[in-house]
Amino acid sequence: MGKVYLVGAGPGDPELLTVKAARILASADIVLYDALVTPQVLALVSAKARVIDVGKRCGQKLLTQQEINAYLVHAAAHHAVVVRLKSGDPLIFGRAGEEIEALRNAGVDFEIVPGITSALAAAAAARISLTDRRFASQVLFTTAHRKGGAFDLGWARTISADATAAIYMPGAAYAELANALVENGLDPQTPCVVVSRAAQETQRILRTDIAGLGSLTGVGAPALLIVGRVAHSDAASIAADVWQQLRDNSAQDNQQIA
Amino acid sequence: MGKVYLVGAGPGDPELLTVKAARILASADIVLYDALVTPQVLALVSAKARVIDVGKRCGQKLLTQQEINAYLVHAAAHHAVVVRLKSGDPLIFGRAGEEIEALRNAGVDFEIVPGITSALAAAAAARISLTDRRFASQVLFTTAHRKGGAFDLGWARTISADATAAIYMPGAAYAELANALVENGLDPQTPCVVVSRAAQETQRILRTDIAGLGSLTGVGAPALLIVGRVAHSDAASIAADVWQQLRDNSAQDNQQIA
Repeated sequence: MGKVYLVGAGPGDPELLTVKAARILASADIVLYDALVTPQVLALVSAKARVIDVGKRCGQKLLTQQEINAYLVHAAAHHAVVVRLKSGDPLIFGRAGEEIEALRNAGVDFEIVPGITSALAAAAAARISLTDRRFASQVLFTTAHRKGGAFDLGWARTISADATAAIYMPGAAYAELANALVENGLDPQTPCVVVSRAAQETQRILRTDIAGLGSLTGVGAPALLIVGRVAHSDAASIAADVWQQLRDNSAQDNQQIA
Repeated sequence: MGKVYLVGAGPGDPELLTVKAARILASADIVLYDALVTPQVLALVSAKARVIDVGKRCGQKLLTQQEINAYLVHAAAHHAVVVRLKSGDPLIFGRAGEEIEALRNAGVDFEIVPGITSALAAAAAARISLTDRRFASQVLFTTAHRKGGAFDLGWARTISADATAAIYMPGAAYAELANALVENGLDPQTPCVVVSRAAQETQRILRTDIAGLGSLTGVGAPALLIVGRVAHSDAASIAADVWQQLRDNSAQDNQQIA
């Protein structure tokens, strides 16, 4: 009986793997990975390993969650080092809960190796302290999840003014999202930063506010949206007129300013 | 003029540094580190580097934040590779905001290297998906901060039932904290996990609920407290009577069950 490692692949740059994750990938016998794991990270996998894509493509699942659970248990019966590789951190929007339960129920030995989750990679890229004590005392990691077509943004109705929101998977419909955030009580002037493909070569950083967010188009996935006063603090030393100019440019053509 | 790297040291295990952080530590000329950074991580610092403790001891600061800011700018004028090493991730409760502003205002080149923040390390150790979609849609990173002696837990009054709270720096007064959480509207039966010194040799994991939390004593710092339904999901396959037994034991003598 082998051991299953649920490993965080981080944002995509192989240098942002943990030392432990890199070591385990190099000794893996079989790796089951998700769609967002980059080729640069997969390049670290042992040459002897079987490497299997179990992710989604265009909303189409290659394997159901139940099939992945069963596959992990099966793989542990036949291989010494089984790696379940998930982008970011396995325990943040990574659907690890069901896999953990399946492994536990089957009596399979397993371990979780944390990774740099998208919000941390995005904040580092944009050089924003998510909990800058001058502007925020807490940070909420949430998603732009939809329920029956409409955004499910209940959190926005009660979020404290001194909280930062890090919104995973904001999708492509920024105009609709911006409207929904305002409808749920957020000030249209609330600063925002969108970080697309954090820590990858095609990284883009777009600074705006909720009102300006609606004009963004063509932001590459995966992206992360930071909403709150801290998103403005990076620009604290930029003169107000330059800031306004940057916002106008961003609204016009999504200019990349970082 | 050198470059300043604000580097996340992760939870303490040097294997949970990112590959990039380990590389930068090995090439550092000067390292300014906080109290919670472990000797095992400091062992990775280049032998040629000056290594300076700027942390707090028993609430007593060795250097003020302003002095650290000035020191960083000064160091960049005299060294090629300046590392500001912070436990966890620099942008989560790391006071990086003021340092970023000081560096920007002084025109110093800098970069942020993310780290495994305490909540991710604790969740991995306790094998809890913080956003297990069956129980939670979001996770709030907050603190057990006090204002004028009393806990400042406004977030607990509005937190959604499907949110997980990851509470940094819960302190040692668990009875008082448990009371304050209940006074702020949380159900005493809400599952809790306390992870003390995650990913270190002296790691302890204590499972209880808010009511039982009050009986905990002698939990080693640093600790992280996870509150919410996900904290229970790890025990989904444990029979109810065993679970009750574990809770009783935990309340009696903080027995370590993981």
